[in-house]
Amino acid sequence: MATHRSMPAKPRIFPLITIKFNAFGSSEFLKMALIVQKYGGTSVGSSERIKNVARRVASWHRKGHQLVIVVSAMSGETNRLIALAREIQAQPDPRELDVMVSTGEQVTIALLSMALLEQGLQARSYTGGQVKIVTDSAYTKARIERIDEANIRRDLDEGRIVVVAGFQGIDEAGNITTLGRGGSDTTGVALAAALKADECQIYTDVDGVYTTDPRVVPEARKLDTITFEEMLEMASLGSKVLQIRSVEFAGKYKVKLRVLSSFEDEGEGTLITFEEDKKMEQATISGIAFNRDEAKITILGVPDRPGIAYQILGPVGDANIDIDMIVQNVGHDGLTDFSFTVHRNDYQKTLEILKPVAAHIKAREVQGGDKIAKVSVVGVGMRSHAGIASTAFRTLAEEGINIQMISTSEIKISIVIDEKYMELAVRVLHKAFGLDQQP
Amino acid sequence: MATHRSMPAKPRIFPLITIKFNAFGSSEFLKMALIVQKYGGTSVGSSERIKNVARRVASWHRKGHQLVIVVSAMSGETNRLIALAREIQAQPDPRELDVMVSTGEQVTIALLSMALLEQGLQARSYTGGQVKIVTDSAYTKARIERIDEANIRRDLDEGRIVVVAGFQGIDEAGNITTLGRGGSDTTGVALAAALKADECQIYTDVDGVYTTDPRVVPEARKLDTITFEEMLEMASLGSKVLQIRSVEFAGKYKVKLRVLSSFEDEGEGTLITFEEDKKMEQATISGIAFNRDEAKITILGVPDRPGIAYQILGPVGDANIDIDMIVQNVGHDGLTDFSFTVHRNDYQKTLEILKPVAAHIKAREVQGGDKIAKVSVVGVGMRSHAGIASTAFRTLAEEGINIQMISTSEIKISIVIDEKYMELAVRVLHKAFGLDQQP
Repeated sequence: MATHRSMPAKPRIFPLITIKFNAFGSSEFLKMALIVQKYGGTSVGSSERIKNVARRVASWHRKGHQLVIVVSAMSGETNRLIALAREIQAQPDPRELDVMVSTGEQVTIALLSMALLEQGLQARSYTGGQVKIVTDSAYTKARIERIDEANIRRDLDEGRIVVVAGFQGIDEAGNITTLGRGGSDTTGVALAAALKADECQIYTDVDGVYTTDPRVVPEARKLDTITFEEMLEMASLGSKVLQIRSVEFAGKYKVKLRVLSSFEDEGEGTLITFEEDKKMEQATISGIAFNRDEAKITILGVPDRPGIAYQILGPVGDANIDIDMIVQNVGHDGLTDFSFTVHRNDYQKTLEILKPVAAHIKAREVQGGDKIAKVSVVGVGMRSHAGIASTAFRTLAEEGINIQMISTSEIKISIVIDEKYMELAVRVLHKAFGLDQQP
Repeated sequence: MATHRSMPAKPRIFPLITIKFNAFGSSEFLKMALIVQKYGGTSVGSSERIKNVARRVASWHRKGHQLVIVVSAMSGETNRLIALAREIQAQPDPRELDVMVSTGEQVTIALLSMALLEQGLQARSYTGGQVKIVTDSAYTKARIERIDEANIRRDLDEGRIVVVAGFQGIDEAGNITTLGRGGSDTTGVALAAALKADECQIYTDVDGVYTTDPRVVPEARKLDTITFEEMLEMASLGSKVLQIRSVEFAGKYKVKLRVLSSFEDEGEGTLITFEEDKKMEQATISGIAFNRDEAKITILGVPDRPGIAYQILGPVGDANIDIDMIVQNVGHDGLTDFSFTVHRNDYQKTLEILKPVAAHIKAREVQGGDKIAKVSVVGVGMRSHAGIASTAFRTLAEEGINIQMISTSEIKISIVIDEKYMELAVRVLHKAFGLDQQP
C-alpha cells in the first residue's frame, strides 16, 4: 500500500473483483459537489499512471464538481530518498529527513498539475507549506493542527483544480514536517474537513472494503457501506485499505470517506458512514478480519496483586514493542495467568525481556507461541443482537478448532487460534454470519 | 559545469593543475569571518562527495568562521526531473516545472545538513522559500528582489552552519521560483550581499581562473586575482567558471568572490576583486579568452541611413537569437557593410530571417560563415597602456593569421579569425603578452 512509506511496495490485500454498480455519471450522486480525492503512490507510480489520474480527474471536473486532489510520492520514490539519507546518516536527522522525503510528493503535484494542464484544465499545485497545513513539530510523525484553506478556496472559485502534496506540512516556525504513515490519507481527510467537502475519496489499488479477504473466501463481497467504527476495527486488524489514523480523523470531523479503485472506471467503492447514516444493509456483522502476524505470550502463576500488569507490560512497552490483545482471567489462590500478543517479529525479544521480569515478580513460568492467528468478527450490529459470540464459538467448535484466547469489544470479537486453522475459521465464520449473501 | 542545468554534465573547462599556495590555515587570511560557500552539482554529486564537502566545511568551522553553505542539485538530478516533466508535457508548464526542479536542491540541503550533523556540528537546512529569498514571478528565470536574512543570522549567532538551497526562491504570493542558469552562484552572491559576508567562495571543479585554457596553452597560469570587469569579459567569452549574472551581482553589491576547487584541499583559488583593491599583479593583460561557438553574418551594401541597424537586428532579436559582436564601419557612397555574430546554432535561421530583410532595405547581399573563432585579449591594464591592439595585430600578422572582424571595449579587444587558426592565435597572444611568466 502507498501508505507504507518505509517499506517496499506491498501486494494489494484484496484482489480486484469487478462488481458493476451504477456508474457515477448516471446516478444522482453528488451534483456539483466539492470533492477531495486522494491518489496513493501506486496510482501515480509512472507518468502514464499520472496521465490516467488526470483523465479521471478531468471526467469528474466535466461533471461540474470542484476538485482538490491529494497525491503521494510516486511509488518507490520515498524509499529511494530514505536510502540516500542512510548513506549519509545511519539514523537520519528527523528534521532533515522530512526536508528530503517531502520532495517526493512535491514532484508528484507538479507532474499531475502538468498532466491536468495538458488536458486543457486549469490546475495549480501546492506543497503542504504553501497551503498552509500547519502541524506540530514532531518530525516524521507530525500531527495536523490547522489548515489555512483560503488559497485553495480562491483557486476553486476561479475554476482551478487544486493539487496538494499529501503527507506533509509545516510547523509554526516554517520547518517542513511529514505526517508519518498513512499521512497522505490524513491530508485528504483533513483538507476535506477544512473545506467542508461533500466527500473525501481515497483511490487505492482495491475497489472497496470486503467482508473478508477474497483470496481466503472467494465468496467475499464488497461492502457498499461500512461504519467508521467497523472500519477502525477492520483496519487495526490488518485490512489496511485505509490508515487507521485517517479514519479516526474522518470520524472526528464527520468527513464522508469513500474507498475506490484508481484502476477501474466504474464502481462506487465503499462509503464509510457515520452509524446514524447507515440505512441500508442492516446486517449484524460486516466482516471477518484476520491477522497471522502475531505471537502470544502467557505468564503463568502470576501473583494476583495491584500493579502486576504494569510490572509485566511496562518493560515491553519501554522496548518499543506494541502490544495488541491483553487477556487476564479471574485469579484463584492468589495467582492468575496473564496473556498478551505482540507482533511476531518481536516474539523472541519479548520472551527475553520477560524472563527476568517473571523471576522478579515470582511468576511460575513464561510460555508462548508464534504459530497463532487472530480471527475477528466485526459489526456494529452485535450491539443489538445477542448470540453473536455463541454463534462464533459454536461454528469453530463444529470444525474442531480450539480457541486459545478471546477478547471482545463493543463491535468485535477476536479469537486466537492455531495458525493452521485460520483460513478454515475465516471461511466458516464468513458463511455462518451470512456474509456471502447479498443483504 | 553545475550551472548548466538543462544540459548534460559538461567536462570542466580547465584541467586541474595543482599549484601550491599557502594553505588557508597558515595564512593571516580571514580570521573569524562570515563566509558564504557555494558548492555546485559535481561537488555534491554523490553521498561520498557530500561527506567530503562536510569535512571541508567542518575544517572552516573549526577555524572559527561563521558559514552559510549554498548547494546545487546533485549532478544529473535536474536533468532527471526535467526529463520526467517532459514525459507529461513536451513544454512543461513553467510554474510547475519550478515546483519540481526545486526539489533537486532541497534533497541536497538535507543530505549536507545530515553530513554536517554526522560530523558533530550544528547545522540546519533552508529552502529558498524558508530563507525567504523573494524573487519576481518569472518562473524558470526569476530574479532575486530581496532576502530576509533574519533566520539565517539567528542560526549563525547560535553557532549553527546554515545550508541553503541554491537556484530557488519564492515570489510575493508564495509560488516557488527558480533563478535559471547560474542560479546557485547568484544565490551565494546574493546571500553574501544580504549578510554582508566577508567573502563568497564558489567551489567548482576548477581551481581558479586561468590566463587561458591550459588545454590550449600548457603554460597558462592560474591568476591569484582578477578584477570584476575582466571576469565579466572572460565569462562572457566562454570561460564559464562563474556565471556572468552572479559576477554582475557581486560587482553591484561589492561582494568579494573567490573561485576555488572543491576537489583540492590547498590553494587559494582566484579572488575576484574590485579594481581599486588590485595591488599585486599589475600585468597589462589578464588573459586570452576564446570562443568557437559563433558564426558571422555580413550584409553588404546597406543604405547608410538612421534606423538601418534596428531594421536588420530587430527581426533577429524578435526570433530570440542572441547577437554578440556588432561591427559597422564608416560608410561611403551612401552605403555601408554591417556585420555581426550569433551562436553557431542560430546561423542558418539568422540567414533565413535576413534574406527578406535585406531585400526590403535594398541591401546588396547577405554573406556569412560559421568556420570562425573569436579570440579576445582582456585586461584592465589596457586602459593605461598604449599599444596593446597593435601588439595583438602584429603578433597575428607574424603568423599569417588574417583578421576578419575587430571589436573593442575599454578592457578587451576581440578579433574574429578563421577557426583553424584559433589555437595558434591563443598561444602566440598568450606569449606575446607575457602571460606565461610569473608577474
